[in-house]
Amino acid sequence: MSHNPDGLAHPARGERRLIRALRERLRPDPAGAVPFGDDMAEVPAAGGLLWSVDMLMDGVDFDSTRHAWHDVGRKALAVNLSDCAAMAARPIAALCAVALADRLTFESALELLDGCRACAEEHGCELVGGDTNSWEHPTVIAMTVAGRTENGAAPVLRSGARPGDRLYVSGPVGGSILGRHMRIAPRVELALKIRRELSPSAMIDVSDGLALDLSRVLEASRCGALLDRPLVERAIHADAHELAARDGVPAIDHALHDGEDFELIVATPPSVEPHRARELGLLPLGEVDADSGLRMRTPDGSVRVIEPRGWEHFR
Amino acid sequence: MSHNPDGLAHPARGERRLIRALRERLRPDPAGAVPFGDDMAEVPAAGGLLWSVDMLMDGVDFDSTRHAWHDVGRKALAVNLSDCAAMAARPIAALCAVALADRLTFESALELLDGCRACAEEHGCELVGGDTNSWEHPTVIAMTVAGRTENGAAPVLRSGARPGDRLYVSGPVGGSILGRHMRIAPRVELALKIRRELSPSAMIDVSDGLALDLSRVLEASRCGALLDRPLVERAIHADAHELAARDGVPAIDHALHDGEDFELIVATPPSVEPHRARELGLLPLGEVDADSGLRMRTPDGSVRVIEPRGWEHFR
Repeated sequence: MSHNPDGLAHPARGERRLIRALRERLRPDPAGAVPFGDDMAEVPAAGGLLWSVDMLMDGVDFDSTRHAWHDVGRKALAVNLSDCAAMAARPIAALCAVALADRLTFESALELLDGCRACAEEHGCELVGGDTNSWEHPTVIAMTVAGRTENGAAPVLRSGARPGDRLYVSGPVGGSILGRHMRIAPRVELALKIRRELSPSAMIDVSDGLALDLSRVLEASRCGALLDRPLVERAIHADAHELAARDGVPAIDHALHDGEDFELIVATPPSVEPHRARELGLLPLGEVDADSGLRMRTPDGSVRVIEPRGWEHFR
Repeated sequence: MSHNPDGLAHPARGERRLIRALRERLRPDPAGAVPFGDDMAEVPAAGGLLWSVDMLMDGVDFDSTRHAWHDVGRKALAVNLSDCAAMAARPIAALCAVALADRLTFESALELLDGCRACAEEHGCELVGGDTNSWEHPTVIAMTVAGRTENGAAPVLRSGARPGDRLYVSGPVGGSILGRHMRIAPRVELALKIRRELSPSAMIDVSDGLALDLSRVLEASRCGALLDRPLVERAIHADAHELAARDGVPAIDHALHDGEDFELIVATPPSVEPHRARELGLLPLGEVDADSGLRMRTPDGSVRVIEPRGWEHFR
């Protein structure tokens, strides 16, 4: 995750290059069912327990000069619960480690905790421990969450999409920067319902942008996808239109490339009738195919490649 | 954990006050066997799985202008494995989240990872995932570790010490600042042996100082302790003597109050003969009693109170 809220300056240099290097160095012989780099990792020999960690930094993922600490605490946990949703896992418990800025008051630190705790309670997740530190630089929060699928089901991976699968998004996207990115509603319950009713072949949450996160699914699944422009247009959030009116960037580009929507991208096998996905509120986008990369088709039949750009750390 | 290496300036304001507030707000009705604030927390409904998180910040827990990134990566995991040791748990897997300073090179980031990975391999712990970010401030590392006791044994808590228990430390302490704090050897194997052979009533690792960490055991156990000065003198590390010669602070004060030794403080029930503890290399310190606080007796019979000062964040 981690997208640049409100255009805060942030130089970055190759997160993907680094992650690729990590993947090569770690688990050269992956034993678990969950490949390195998916939304959550599997705890070995723990009966299918999944866990993930997300780090949020002041000035990058939130802005303490404008956002309430309660909202920051909520978001710190919510982004992690969104990873649970992407695996169709139910969150169980969380650990919260913080490096608090020295200028932070005791009351603000408690607000941060209360926000985190409120989000935990909403989702039946228990905050069981952490590590409290302070330093002279901006506040950093690292949240670790453990979760589990229902009834021992396999987690929904990024790598399961196949040509012919239909692609959906769980809600309209784009323009979250106008404020929605601080009020994330992780799609945990919806994800569990999607798994039960649609047997999805792959899922991911939109943390860094629809195009970039979908490309991660396609890369992991060794497939491509063709989106239908009229369908994508129907998945543009009102905030993306508002932002487009302000900055002149087409609303569809905001929908494709803005981060921090935390909706789910869902691939369903051909056997799943589209009306069943629509009944869960999913918005169709297009189809997975055997070509490479992400493309979008306009009604006149022309096709353009969509670059998987979006928010990336350490570029 | 988190002690001030090499005297780096660091204002702090009440970690204990904050942790007390956290404890009051979290788990008001603790269901698990492991109380909030112990070395590791229990993952609910995960068959006794334990986990903990530690955050290390550049300029506080290490100094990237002087320490090699490989050593930093090693330490980031090692402090967490020391928490495993303190519970007599065997580490299973780790997640590593980083906010890398923008000025950090790609090679340094890989060195950091390699140090972490080397430490993981030494201890049979698998690095299974993480979160990679970058920003314009100093590097922050948050390491989460999961572990498990052997054969379903109960974890060794801080709260189990009882009057009459004997107190030991697993090796000489003090002066780790001279370099040892970057070359931690977490006492994982020793801790498992201690649990099997001595059935300890309580354990903790010395992260913030012998006196402060022992006081945490006493507070959790609602006991006091009386240390024997000649015994404590035999547990002074050579580095503490060297540091004393440099800074004029008595070596015994370095042994009592310096942090980051990562030796184990062990309380054993009266039934465990002292020679069995000595056979495992444990150094005796004194005894737990029913009085309050930590005290030290000199050979002439006089007793002085030892203040539980040491490294504390957010004072």
